[in-house]
Formats: sequence, structure tokens, C-alpha cells
Amino acid sequence: MPAEPAVARGPATGAPLRRRGEALENAIFEAALQQLTADGYARLTMEGVAAAAQTGKAALYRRWPSKEELVKDALRACLPPVGPPPDTGGLRGDLVEVVTRLRAAMLSEPGAAVRAIMGELDQQRAHTFLAIVLERVVEPTAALIAEVLARGATRGEVRPGSVTPLVTDVVPALMLYRVKMCGGAPAQLDPAEIVDEVLLPIVRP
Amino acid sequence: MPAEPAVARGPATGAPLRRRGEALENAIFEAALQQLTADGYARLTMEGVAAAAQTGKAALYRRWPSKEELVKDALRACLPPVGPPPDTGGLRGDLVEVVTRLRAAMLSEPGAAVRAIMGELDQQRAHTFLAIVLERVVEPTAALIAEVLARGATRGEVRPGSVTPLVTDVVPALMLYRVKMCGGAPAQLDPAEIVDEVLLPIVRP
Repeated sequence: MPAEPAVARGPATGAPLRRRGEALENAIFEAALQQLTADGYARLTMEGVAAAAQTGKAALYRRWPSKEELVKDALRACLPPVGPPPDTGGLRGDLVEVVTRLRAAMLSEPGAAVRAIMGELDQQRAHTFLAIVLERVVEPTAALIAEVLARGATRGEVRPGSVTPLVTDVVPALMLYRVKMCGGAPAQLDPAEIVDEVLLPIVRP
Repeated sequence: MPAEPAVARGPATGAPLRRRGEALENAIFEAALQQLTADGYARLTMEGVAAAAQTGKAALYRRWPSKEELVKDALRACLPPVGPPPDTGGLRGDLVEVVTRLRAAMLSEPGAAVRAIMGELDQQRAHTFLAIVLERVVEPTAALIAEVLARGATRGEVRPGSVTPLVTDVVPALMLYRVKMCGGAPAQLDPAEIVDEVLLPIVRP
């Protein structure tokens, strides 16, 4: 087992690959998410991730006591952040941007890994991973929608009193429903359609 | 093992209980759903259901080769039908009635049994049960909403062009999201709130 900093052969040059700290962690996270998406959670092993990340198993176990902890950290590190409120100058543009970011998160490698986990584990076991997605992606998205609508209200683009917790839940609810229940792919979700057919009609003056 | 028609003691009188055909099946379905809700899918056994339904294991195996087939038939038989379009005379009343029926299905014994299955099985194994709920409850509800909105359109209560597949999916999406992702109970869903805050604003002229 190589000591840290991890020593491995770079794939192209055959030269030793020395990485420490964040660079090594990122390589491990990326390998873990790729294996999750390709082979699923049950077949994910610390050995397999170490090999794919060109490091040793000991480097993984020094950081994470189990693959569950590794996957949780990988999701926390790699799920794309929702980011600050967009500012396109208009309500419609801002909303389309927020919905587009949520779709990007669903289409990302960690988003695909979460779908693999959800498909494979029962809800009780999946709950710990789902909680990370809710906390990192779903709830911030609802908060961002609320923020964008509040800004729209100051410009007179939003009917007073129209924004309730149900309304800010509509977008994540529809997107998860379409993907989970109807077996659709996130790529089929059209942010402009969701904004124009559902969200804007609810709030317009 | 008693021969059919099943012979068992009635709980109140102690008199022999003779049932055949539909009556016996209903007792078996009810016992299966109750056991699912109370103990979950893994602990459901043909023996346990037979005992609770006051019949013999052979009576079950004559009809269903496995507990999976039994549970599927129980869901098909017991999920409350969505029913014909309501006719309260107005769009709002009709929509509240449809959403109330969907909530009733979620609150029913088979609805609770489905939640138990979903919580316990991974998505791949749960898929066969989920498909029954989609076919029997979710899709007919979306169709009923479309029908109610079409009637509303003839009365001028619905903006032309406002009803799209996304719009008729909003109610089931929101209700399943609130219960599944947010860990809420179906009883907390308020049909009038969903209609007044979300669905009516989308479609009003």
C-alpha cells in the first residue's frame, strides 16, 4: 500500500503521480461516483475506487471508515452548488436559469449516482443519501425560487400573496416526479416549458 | 388445511365462518394489506395472511403462486377507484373533489401498504407495485383533472391553451413530493390549498 502522498503511474506518461490533500480527494470522489453510476452501490468497493483513483486502499480507509461515508462525502463535495440568485433583469429569465441549474444538477455525475443509489437501495437505506440531495440541491433550489419571485414582486412581476411554500415546491416536485415516477430522463425536462406553463401562470399579476 | 369453502370461527359468535369466492378473497386481501402496513413486506408470509384471514395456506396457494402475486392482486382489488368526473357545478368544487379523492387513496389501507413497500424495497423490486399505483390511481387522477378542466373550459372558467401535460401532472407531483421527499403524512395535504394556490391560478382566464 503506498504511503501518502499517493504514488501511482499517470495513465498517459507512466510517470509517478504525486497528489496530496484536495487533489487526491477529488480523484477519489470522481472514481467513486463513476463506479456508482456504472456498477451501482452494491458492487462499489473501496479497493475498486482506490484502483480507479490510482491510489491505495489505505489512503481511503485513513479518511473514510466505510464506503457509505465515502459516498456521502463525494456527494457533498461534487453535487453542483445551486449558486447565488441569477440576475437576468427579468422574472422569466431568472426562473428559467434556476430551473436550468436544477436540471444540470440532476444531469451531473453525482446526480446520476444518486439516481443509481435510489434505484438500488430501499428507502430506509437510501435516506441518508437522499437527505444530502435535499439539503444541498432541492431545498436551496426552492429557496432560490422564493428569492427570485420576491425580487420579481418588487418589480411588479409577481402577484402579491401568490408565493406560498406549495408554489416554491412545484418545480422540484414536477421534475422529480417526471424522472422518478414516469421513468423519464432529466434531459427531457424543458426548463422554459416548466416556467411558461406552470410557474409563471401561478404568480403573474 | 381446511378445504374450500374456507371454514373458520367467526370472531364474535364463534360460529363457523363459511365463505367462498369473492368474500374469501376480500378477507385475504384485507389481511395481506393489514400485515403489510403493520409489519412490512419482508415479514409478510402466506401463512400469516392465511391465519389472519381465518383460512388455510392451501387456499392462498391455489390462487397465488407467491406473496408478490397476492400483494399485486390485493392492490388491484383494493386501491379505491378514482371514479367518474365529479359534477359540483363549478371548476373549483370539481378540482377540490378530485384532489380529495387522490388524498383518500393515499390515506387508504392499500395506500399505506404501498408506502410500506416503497420504503422497504429498492426501486427495481418496488417497480412492479408502483406500476399498479400509477395505472390505477395516478394516471386516472391526471386524466380526471384534464376532464374537469376541459369541462371548465366550456364554461369559460379555464384559459384556452393553459392545460398541458405538465399542468395535469402538477397535483400528483406535489402530493407525492410532499409525502415522499418531505416525509409528510398524506393527512397534512390540504386539497383546497393545492387547488387555490397552484392549480386554479395556472388555468384561470
